[in-house]
Amino acid sequence: MPSSYNLTDLTTLLDAQLLGDGECIISGIGDAATATAGQITFISNKKYLPQLDTSAASAVLLAAPLDNCAVVNQLIVADPYLAYAKLTLIFDNRPKTPALIHPAAVVDPSAKLGEGVRIAAGCVVEAGAEVGDHTELCAGAVVGPNAKLGQHCLLHANATIAHHCVLGNRVKVHSGTTVGSDGFGYAPSRDEGWVKIHQLGRVVIGDDVEVGANCAIDRGAIKDTIIADGVIIDNLVHIAHNVTIGKRTAIAGCVGIAGSTEVGAGCTMGGFVAINGHLKIADNVHFNGGTVVTKSIAEAGHYASGSPMQDVRSWRRNMVRLSQLDEWVGRIKKLEDQQ
Amino acid sequence: MPSSYNLTDLTTLLDAQLLGDGECIISGIGDAATATAGQITFISNKKYLPQLDTSAASAVLLAAPLDNCAVVNQLIVADPYLAYAKLTLIFDNRPKTPALIHPAAVVDPSAKLGEGVRIAAGCVVEAGAEVGDHTELCAGAVVGPNAKLGQHCLLHANATIAHHCVLGNRVKVHSGTTVGSDGFGYAPSRDEGWVKIHQLGRVVIGDDVEVGANCAIDRGAIKDTIIADGVIIDNLVHIAHNVTIGKRTAIAGCVGIAGSTEVGAGCTMGGFVAINGHLKIADNVHFNGGTVVTKSIAEAGHYASGSPMQDVRSWRRNMVRLSQLDEWVGRIKKLEDQQ
Amino acid sequence: MPSSYNLTDLTTLLDAQLLGDGECIISGIGDAATATAGQITFISNKKYLPQLDTSAASAVLLAAPLDNCAVVNQLIVADPYLAYAKLTLIFDNRPKTPALIHPAAVVDPSAKLGEGVRIAAGCVVEAGAEVGDHTELCAGAVVGPNAKLGQHCLLHANATIAHHCVLGNRVKVHSGTTVGSDGFGYAPSRDEGWVKIHQLGRVVIGDDVEVGANCAIDRGAIKDTIIADGVIIDNLVHIAHNVTIGKRTAIAGCVGIAGSTEVGAGCTMGGFVAINGHLKIADNVHFNGGTVVTKSIAEAGHYASGSPMQDVRSWRRNMVRLSQLDEWVGRIKKLEDQQ
Repeated sequence: MPSSYNLTDLTTLLDAQLLGDGECIISGIGDAATATAGQITFISNKKYLPQLDTSAASAVLLAAPLDNCAVVNQLIVADPYLAYAKLTLIFDNRPKTPALIHPAAVVDPSAKLGEGVRIAAGCVVEAGAEVGDHTELCAGAVVGPNAKLGQHCLLHANATIAHHCVLGNRVKVHSGTTVGSDGFGYAPSRDEGWVKIHQLGRVVIGDDVEVGANCAIDRGAIKDTIIADGVIIDNLVHIAHNVTIGKRTAIAGCVGIAGSTEVGAGCTMGGFVAINGHLKIADNVHFNGGTVVTKSIAEAGHYASGSPMQDVRSWRRNMVRLSQLDEWVGRIKKLEDQQ
Repeated sequence: MPSSYNLTDLTTLLDAQLLGDGECIISGIGDAATATAGQITFISNKKYLPQLDTSAASAVLLAAPLDNCAVVNQLIVADPYLAYAKLTLIFDNRPKTPALIHPAAVVDPSAKLGEGVRIAAGCVVEAGAEVGDHTELCAGAVVGPNAKLGQHCLLHANATIAHHCVLGNRVKVHSGTTVGSDGFGYAPSRDEGWVKIHQLGRVVIGDDVEVGANCAIDRGAIKDTIIADGVIIDNLVHIAHNVTIGKRTAIAGCVGIAGSTEVGAGCTMGGFVAINGHLKIADNVHFNGGTVVTKSIAEAGHYASGSPMQDVRSWRRNMVRLSQLDEWVGRIKKLEDQQ
Repeated sequence: MPSSYNLTDLTTLLDAQLLGDGECIISGIGDAATATAGQITFISNKKYLPQLDTSAASAVLLAAPLDNCAVVNQLIVADPYLAYAKLTLIFDNRPKTPALIHPAAVVDPSAKLGEGVRIAAGCVVEAGAEVGDHTELCAGAVVGPNAKLGQHCLLHANATIAHHCVLGNRVKVHSGTTVGSDGFGYAPSRDEGWVKIHQLGRVVIGDDVEVGANCAIDRGAIKDTIIADGVIIDNLVHIAHNVTIGKRTAIAGCVGIAGSTEVGAGCTMGGFVAINGHLKIADNVHFNGGTVVTKSIAEAGHYASGSPMQDVRSWRRNMVRLSQLDEWVGRIKKLEDQQ
């Protein structure tokens, strides 16, 4: 892609309406407050409108024309935040891996590579694996035996896809992440200790999924672990064996979901949400960060757990009382009886 | 291994008693509910027995013969779940790394490799390292200088064993995991900031240990970090320097154990358990998921912390009260004084 | 470095005062309780002084001379713990990567390497990257396109630095860690689902920073994610896009910091601290392990959240009451009204 565009071009690319100078050249995106000349900015929330008064941006994405605005070039769009997202693709600066198999990559002769596949140095594609058209593997990525990647996928450096796992199209996996590690399954034996249950299932990921850095998604024990289309997952997320995640669910960093839990579609989880195993979470359930989920949830809604942050002294005093709470409730009841 | 067995063979392999047709061919394992013809299933909990009524499985592992069962071929074993675990080894579908040193692996000339070692492309075995007989390194695994792996170990792709660390026999380490990262040790200095304490100890792991994906186990500061025989560790677990973990303790995902804590044998930890440093946890202590452990525990038993999940509105109201709890207890006391 | 020193040499190296035999040979460091002959130990806290009574150590670092001490050779220093830290550098046993580019490393012709750079087998240095003088890359480390590492940096095995990210001098990054993964940014779209906001910023890390194993530090969305000089970060820490961390802040394991939060200088965070996005944390704020931070903090001090660990039965009873707490407070108020 070119590194700069004039506003007429951007107007077309974003399906916008242009107020101002179509010849103005834009070479990047900036925050309203810190953008420099030649950059375009956006306002997705009215409370940030005052930032435009002093903005040096050469153009702005807005939901409606703004009179007397310091930024005279305005691109009017239905959803400025969505238009900004599309703009980031236009100005994406990530250097792509060249469209060839680097001589220092190792591709097993039995692997099948699609057209336009990009494989960087240090990658390993094992026997029987399939890599779809235009998929890109950055340095050190490993595609295990018989794994299958769709088209236009992107494995960042040092990502690992284990044997037999399946990625749909346009799946992105960030560095350090493991797709297809063994689930944590053992049979206890007095004589032999924990006897490993070899994990025979796969991880099957749909289309348009993104998995952040240093996540671990376990393969199923017998059946598969399933991540549906459009799911987005942040960093350091643990998804155990046989979990299923419904379409377009969004999972923030440091979340852990224990085995066999079924999460619905359209859910959101803040950071550090911890979900027990064998639960069923309905569609459109939203968890605050840090929620510990120990029961199934049948109804859409917002849920939370966790205790409030305080200065250490107040917190200690309150926590002593919390550890006696049932007793204090008993004393309230006794007082009530005495009325 | 062959990909299918007749029931007579499986009966022998599992030390079972066969009811039914010994010639019946089994080519895989299925859930009772979804198994197809040619698969064997298992019932380890009576509540799942009704699933057999409609199961298409060709055989079932049971603790006792079941009359009038839709699945007529029954293998009677003392512990169906344990027998299922053993069956998963028989039907394990993970393609093994070929029994040779891949030409695109790098093994330092001073490293010692045992018999039947398997080293995939992209692996690096550094100077002075030892890899025991029949140990397998998947693509991109790194064995640091002077590290020592026992026999029949398995490093999954992109696992890292740092210098001087020791793994016993039959140790499995999953992708992305680091054994032997530096402990978090620094001396504060007004002039120089945090002055690093170089970590001179090792990680020493016993036999039959499994470590999940994307874990970090730090080397000791002076002495070693010790993981005893038979310990099992799930994904994204952090074990700090000088920690010791007793035999057969099981640690679920996202657990963190701070420095110098000693965990006993036979303990279990649910996900997200957080244990402070310099504590001593007795044998056979069981922590619910999410328990924050700030004190040593001298007695076996079940422990927990954390607050209940609620809808966000109820939770907010209760949390306001929790942050005032000591004050409300004072008001209860005052009411009692007034009686 | 040599593997042993006499006490006269160590006295000079540590700027100490020697009481005892300068010819005594020291070949390692030991704990006071378990040190053997030939080792030096240290006492940084008076409560451990009794350990010297039975110590076999050949010398000890002390803040003041100790009469009648079983360890007769004493090095008197202003800060024994700091002197111990410096001693660990002297006795550091990590085998360094040889000072050359391993033939099985891949360095793009357009990358710039400083003097004395050490690059192990399996490393990949991508186009346009810069690696400063005396920086060391252990096996399998990846330096992405246009990334820039300062002098005397150390990337442990399988660490990943993504494109355009910048590391200052003397930065250490442990195995499995990702610097520069994409921030978790998406625009919701009814028609298209989560539309990715490509992350155009960098991670910029100052001097003398150490990042533990299996961390993920996201690049900024538009501006950069900033880690200031002297920051230390333990394992499995998640730092989201556009976060800024002030000088010499220390972050323990399993912490997560959400997007755009500004953390001050000189802060400390215990393990599992979770900080919401878009907050501002003042300098010298200290969080207990497990604190969930949902509000900005303007004042230095100690803060905590979380609930106390108990045996499971007591905990369950108290938690039932906690989920009714607002109701019980109402009953206290009613009782007060009836007085």
